[in-house]
Order: sequence, then C-alpha cells, then structure tokens
Amino acid sequence: MKIAGKSYRTIWSRDDGSVEIIDQTKLPHAFATLRLKSAADAAHAIRTMIVRGAPLIGATAAYGIALAMREDSSDVALDQTYDALLATRPTAVNLRWALARMRDRLRNRPREERATLAWTEAAAICDDDVETCRSIGEHGLAILREASERKSGAKLNILTHCNAGWLACVDWGTALAPIYMAHDSGLPLHVWVDETRPRNQGASLTAFELGGHGVPHTIIADNAGGHYMQAGEVDLCIVGTDRVAANGDVANKIGTYLKALAAKDNGVPFHVALPSSTIDWTIADGHAIPIEERSSDELLKMTGRLPGGGLATVEIAAPGSPGANPGFDVTPARLVTGFITERGPCAATRDGLLSLFPERRKVQDET
Amino acid sequence: MKIAGKSYRTIWSRDDGSVEIIDQTKLPHAFATLRLKSAADAAHAIRTMIVRGAPLIGATAAYGIALAMREDSSDVALDQTYDALLATRPTAVNLRWALARMRDRLRNRPREERATLAWTEAAAICDDDVETCRSIGEHGLAILREASERKSGAKLNILTHCNAGWLACVDWGTALAPIYMAHDSGLPLHVWVDETRPRNQGASLTAFELGGHGVPHTIIADNAGGHYMQAGEVDLCIVGTDRVAANGDVANKIGTYLKALAAKDNGVPFHVALPSSTIDWTIADGHAIPIEERSSDELLKMTGRLPGGGLATVEIAAPGSPGANPGFDVTPARLVTGFITERGPCAATRDGLLSLFPERRKVQDET
Repeated sequence: MKIAGKSYRTIWSRDDGSVEIIDQTKLPHAFATLRLKSAADAAHAIRTMIVRGAPLIGATAAYGIALAMREDSSDVALDQTYDALLATRPTAVNLRWALARMRDRLRNRPREERATLAWTEAAAICDDDVETCRSIGEHGLAILREASERKSGAKLNILTHCNAGWLACVDWGTALAPIYMAHDSGLPLHVWVDETRPRNQGASLTAFELGGHGVPHTIIADNAGGHYMQAGEVDLCIVGTDRVAANGDVANKIGTYLKALAAKDNGVPFHVALPSSTIDWTIADGHAIPIEERSSDELLKMTGRLPGGGLATVEIAAPGSPGANPGFDVTPARLVTGFITERGPCAATRDGLLSLFPERRKVQDET
Repeated sequence: MKIAGKSYRTIWSRDDGSVEIIDQTKLPHAFATLRLKSAADAAHAIRTMIVRGAPLIGATAAYGIALAMREDSSDVALDQTYDALLATRPTAVNLRWALARMRDRLRNRPREERATLAWTEAAAICDDDVETCRSIGEHGLAILREASERKSGAKLNILTHCNAGWLACVDWGTALAPIYMAHDSGLPLHVWVDETRPRNQGASLTAFELGGHGVPHTIIADNAGGHYMQAGEVDLCIVGTDRVAANGDVANKIGTYLKALAAKDNGVPFHVALPSSTIDWTIADGHAIPIEERSSDELLKMTGRLPGGGLATVEIAAPGSPGANPGFDVTPARLVTGFITERGPCAATRDGLLSLFPERRKVQDET
C-alpha cells in the first residue's frame, strides 16, 4: 500500500543482505524504517512490537531464520534460532507456522545451501502472504457487496478492532483488505475504528492506514462500539485474529470478545478474516491458547505529539496504582458469524474450517 | 473521605458565601480546589467536568441556584438559572432532580427569604446525599458479605467502570460505598478498575480514591474485563448510573453495556448502585434517555505527568483522523442483576423499583 504516494510493504530484503522494516512503534507520529541484520534483531523487533500483526510476525521470524543461516547454517543454529524466535511472543500462531515452514525447508538440505534457500523461502512466505491477503480481500469484498445491496447501496458502516490492515501483514491486510477493495470499487463505506487500548493500534495504525488510503473513518473509544450497534450505526464488524482453534474459537486483540458479544446482542454480523496459517489445528478449542501478559507501562503511560512539536511520554494514571495488561482474549466461535480465508468464507465451526481445508481432515480425525 | 489523612467532601460552603469544590480535572496529577461565586461558575464547573458524577452534578447545581438567589431572587432569575444549569449536561437526571427540588422549595416563598432558604436547601441536598450514599453502602455491604461467604471468605474480585465513588457524590460514593465499608470491616477484596476511556475516570479518579483508602486494586484497559470474567477472576460487578428509566434500563458511562453483556455471558452478577434521585420515573425505557456527545479532543488528546515533573497534553491518534465521543450508553434492564438503593436492593424491573418506592405507583399508573 502507499504512504505519501509511495508503495511500501511492511518488510523487504535489501541488496546488502539486511532486511528492512517499518518501525511501527513510531507510527502515527513519524514514519521510519529499521534494518535487521541478525536473528537477534528480528527477535527484538517482534518482542518490542516494532513489527506486530500475526502475519507480519511470521514473515519477520522467517527472515530471522534466514539472517541466522548466513552466520551459522548448522542444525544446532537452526534449532536455537527457531526456539529463540518462537519465544518472542506466545499468542499468534503464525510465528510457529512460519518458523516450522522455514525449518522443514532447511532441515534435510546441505548446510552450504541453507543460507540461499532460507532467503528464498522467507521471500516466498512474504509473497505468499501478499497473495493470501489479496484473496481474503476478494472474498471479503463479496460479503461487503452483499451487505451494501441489503442497504440498497446506502453507506455501509463497518467496525473494526485493533489493526488487521496492511501494517499487520506484508501488504493489503486481512480485515482491511476487503475494505480497501470495496472503497476502490466505489462502494460507499465508513469505518468505525476502535482506539484499541492499551497500545492504541486502532487510533495509531488503522486510522493512519485508512487516512492514507482516503477511506472515510472515525476513531472511537473501545467503549463506544456497543452504543453504536444499539443505535443501528454498525452494519457489520470485521476483525483479524492471532490464532483460531480447530473448533473456530478466535484469539484476537484484547476487547474483541466484548465487541462480538455486542454484535450478537444487536444482530450485527461479526466476521473474522484470516490466512489459513492462523488456524491452529493442534488445539481443540480456545482454552488452550496462551494469552500474553504485557507490561503495565503500556496501559499507564502514553506517548503523543506535543503542541510545539516533538514527542513526549506521560504517565496518565493515579500515581502508585498498579495495572494489568493481558494482550488478547478469546471470542467463542458461537459469536462469530463466519470466517473469511484465502480459500473463501466458511462457518466458524470445525466442519466449516474442514470444508475449506479438507486436507486437514485426516490430521483432525487422528487427534 | 480522606485525602492524605484529611477528611473532605467534594463540595462545601464557605463562610464568605462562596462554594468550594475539588477540581477533578486536575486529579490524579494534582489536588486543587476551586471557589464558585456565581451560578455561571457552577454551570462552568459542571459543563467542563471540574465536577462530575450524577449526584455531585445535582449538588453543584443546587448551590448554583443558591448563588444566583444572592444576586437576584426574582422568579425570572430563578427560572433562568434553572434553565441555564439544566442545559449544562443532558444525561444525568440528578441535575434535573436537584434543580426541581430547589425551585419547588423557593417558588412560592417571599423573595426576601429565598437566598437564605436556597442556601439551606442546597446544604440539605448535600447532607441528604451523604446519608443516601451511606445507606447504599450498607445495603451493598450485605451483598458483598453474601458473595464473600459463597467464596468461603476467599478474596472477592469486584469490577467497576468509571468513577462512582465519593468523588462522584458528596461523600462515600454509590458503587464504591459498599467496597469501602467491606474493606473497612476486614472483608478481603480486590477491585478491577476499568480505565474508562476516553476521560479515564477509572484510572484517574477511582484508582486515586481506592489507593487513598488503601483498597487493593488494579487498573485494566476497558477491553480487558471480559477476559477476566471468562477466566473466573471477577466475582461481581458494581457500577453507578446517570439515569435509570422506569423499566430499569440504565444509562451510565460509555462502555458499561459491554461489561454487562460480558457479565451475563459469564454468569457474573452485575449490580447498579444508585440514589433514588437517579430514577427518571417520567420515561418508560432507556430509548428516551439523551446521550451526550462530547468533544473528540477527549479521545484524541491525553494529559499526563512528564518524567521530569510538570504536565503535558499530547495528541495520540493519527493526524487528521476524526473522532466521535458519545459519553454514555444504555444497559438494558435484562442485563442487570439488581439495583442497590438507599432503601435496599431490588430487581431491575418496574415492579422491583415500585416495590421500594410505592409512592411512585400512582404516578406510574397514570403515565
């Protein structure tokens, strides 16, 4: 997608053998890129959320393996890098998926080929992600068109939580890909952007993306979505996800569950957009998904632009009061209207998922 | 209640004929008081949320009438002051209740008596509020004791939204009064404090209150409460309210509805504490409650303490993105476990309310 008229992905390789990423901790206040020169750099970028979003975490980890193979292409180095990168964040399963794809590609190949193979495979993961998100966008576009027709073409109001746009992926996004395509095709729409406390990825990243692309949108407090649904001001919700269990339970940014409850209570469709790499076929339901607990500083401090220029970080809460900061929650499948995947839409059930991914049926029947 | 060991109310009259209030826009960063010398001062304090909280808004408006009567005790002045104060904020019905009580007290009295009468009546409204909140606290304490017994005395985890503590009233609070009494009686408890975006009354005021009183508490993002309920970490919710319709629908700080949905979904009791002045017997249900729309600056900017001392206000969202800021939402009565009033607990239904306030039955039957 474009920033100030120039096309970007969120991650790309450089001729000097490093990997360049957009520093998402600087957005929306400044646009800056960073170079990753080692697996440790990649791990640091993931852990500190310089890159974030389930698909982009996976892509960055893949390049982390590739960078490591340049230094040491041994089995020990491969396994150690895999473990170090896997440990950076617990909830998004795309991290494990991308690391496993890299290890499977490299494990039985000669050491001298691994650096080149790894580089090619990481690039392929990125290219695949772009194509996957484009497909999600097209399948989601059909859903938005139907919703628009039900309103006789009147402006469609879509609510989204957190950032599942191109900044969360390599390009396009998951939840936002259909929105970009619908907007580009002339379908009138408006997006309610949940601020998404405590890290404000909605107000910072989703609003930045949508504004950059010219999509009409309004930032609202996370508290406000239920009220707008009650008032008939939300036609549908689309969110991304960090991990989907085999039964369709959805782990996503903290607060997603509350919006799904409100959608259900008001008869508002609640869609979850995801690449199949986000499905964790190894767990039966959402109870098994680990929920990351992050620093309470993310809640108790806030960074923003000073009126005279420059940035400041201020402490916003009562001095001495502790905070707690779970990063994700689990939305039960019963609250999800449907999934939008690269192979099309499906019901948020085990059977729904297996109807699109029949090759998983054997694995599922065995577990 | 006490701040740094000294007892305060949120509003009190001074010997010089002015009224002193705590400037709640300065909390939790600084403790400062302000003097109101006219009805215009009172209106300004209410509109800009220097004072806030349904009961305190009513008390401040009452003193606004009293201050006006000093200047001009005519019927015209009384009506104009009533109208000007009523227009300051639309949702909390205590404002209308207190103004009506003042006007009823003064209307048919000689002009020369009105200034003194008004002053006495405003003081009585404050004293009554303290007594009302104390009663709410005692009735709520019985509910907390029962909940504690069901857990065999293990630590009770209570979630609250916004600030319905003593800072929202004249003293004690509504939702927090039972918590203070339970804590003081040695009942082990811990409070999950919803940050309460966009104005952060939870992180700023409730945490400040609870910390000042030594009540164990943890600030969480508004997004996190559903997750903690799913995890069994919330035993019950108590919130305040700005207006209750005759059928039991509850207007309260934006986001309350989402917590009530999550409580229902997880079998967590959801209590609403209120003085009877918060019941609007004139409206059949919550649809008729006006929802205040406030400036998006409250959402898009944030004030806090700089590391080196001093305060700064920073812009936190993507530049150029608009925001919307509804201040309240309506929680349907079906999601409310029960009310806690100064006359005791009752079901969140028309019959439940009338069982405690039978004197309203005739009015209700006529409407």
